[in-house]
Amino acid sequence: MRNIKIVIEYDGTRYAGWQRQKNAMSIQEVVEDAISSLTKEDITIIGSSRTDAGVHARGQVANFFTDTKIPTEKLPQAINARLPEDITVILAEEVSDNFHARYCSRGKRYSYTILNRRAKPAYMRNYVMHCPYALDFEAMVKASRAFLGKHDFSAFRASGSSVKTSVRTVRQLELIKDGDIIKMFIEADGFLYNMVRIIAGTLVDIGRGRIAGSEIEEIILSKDRERAGQTAPASGLCLEKVYY
Amino acid sequence: MRNIKIVIEYDGTRYAGWQRQKNAMSIQEVVEDAISSLTKEDITIIGSSRTDAGVHARGQVANFFTDTKIPTEKLPQAINARLPEDITVILAEEVSDNFHARYCSRGKRYSYTILNRRAKPAYMRNYVMHCPYALDFEAMVKASRAFLGKHDFSAFRASGSSVKTSVRTVRQLELIKDGDIIKMFIEADGFLYNMVRIIAGTLVDIGRGRIAGSEIEEIILSKDRERAGQTAPASGLCLEKVYY
Repeated sequence: MRNIKIVIEYDGTRYAGWQRQKNAMSIQEVVEDAISSLTKEDITIIGSSRTDAGVHARGQVANFFTDTKIPTEKLPQAINARLPEDITVILAEEVSDNFHARYCSRGKRYSYTILNRRAKPAYMRNYVMHCPYALDFEAMVKASRAFLGKHDFSAFRASGSSVKTSVRTVRQLELIKDGDIIKMFIEADGFLYNMVRIIAGTLVDIGRGRIAGSEIEEIILSKDRERAGQTAPASGLCLEKVYY
Repeated sequence: MRNIKIVIEYDGTRYAGWQRQKNAMSIQEVVEDAISSLTKEDITIIGSSRTDAGVHARGQVANFFTDTKIPTEKLPQAINARLPEDITVILAEEVSDNFHARYCSRGKRYSYTILNRRAKPAYMRNYVMHCPYALDFEAMVKASRAFLGKHDFSAFRASGSSVKTSVRTVRQLELIKDGDIIKMFIEADGFLYNMVRIIAGTLVDIGRGRIAGSEIEEIILSKDRERAGQTAPASGLCLEKVYY
């Protein structure tokens, strides 16, 4: 059997998230059905990350085993012909048998987009968080530095996950302002459940003056989810890249 | 009566364009209905530009006359409460009686976005033109300079318009590449019908090698629409700003 790695882009607006579930449409199910119908096999795909409902991806990675004779370079077009318009396979490559999209990941990069103005968003409304309150961008940038490095991020984790360790290393956190758009890029060796959305929400709370930027270090050390900020909405989040 | 200038953002995907028409939903009609229902008047709005079906705007400008007592600064929120999620009023201000959104415009700025990769777009699919062919970006940048300045742009005008003169001054034309996205920003004192989309389509044809970049000057001088490139699709186009 061949082990195929695929890079998937999707608009998560219509979906209940990545992971297959009963009574709700998931990205995993739609992609598995498309590949299964193409190769006439019963395909299971392993995703690098179980993105939540409404979260987008420009670079989700998954792998699956297949006996198909279709050449690897022809797979994206063949799968895409069976996918709806909001999911697309960008790339396929054959990898060694021991490649596992989730366990082999060495890091991920997410973006989070905030529209900061009074009026609700219309253009690109499904790809942003709307923040109608004035934000102190400089305070957000200054505070963001405290997230860099190796920390126990328990204070920035939603309950419901059961990973062995809550220590993660944030390698990069960049904030860019372009008119009324604030964009955050964050890269780490891995993320806890809702970690990016809680960091984004905390930075918004700092921008609004509801949390002091100087408190971040203390909030991290407290390991107390109650002390961090709101969980920012799913729509602003996009899985940009997975590293191996 | 007060003359109110509004700045409107919209996602044009669902609409038959700006201009009110029979048997098809237009942005103008939806905004007029929202304001009329708010002020209990029969409102007509004058738009700066009749954007086509599928074209977006982040900064369309319109004006209308009203006797409403609602304070100007409260108008955007009040109108937005009656608008669908893909149209939003960003700003309202009272202007002098002789302000006319179309006739007083001194220039406009548009963006055009191209996704240049093999796989179809999913994320942001309604806001881009998809070009699956390899594009020579440097050739496009070099050729784009020939559009700058004052020219008769008849070769870059779709038939069906009846303006007095086809001479326009392109003040700025910038191309930016970010990964597989190519973005064009173009600013002029005014645009002929489909001018931005024909310029974008011609630059794509240059990038693909179907038109030589060195020919642009000659094509402009020929005033022959047949010699310019394809009309790029509506989805990639966005009216960014109108100058007064």
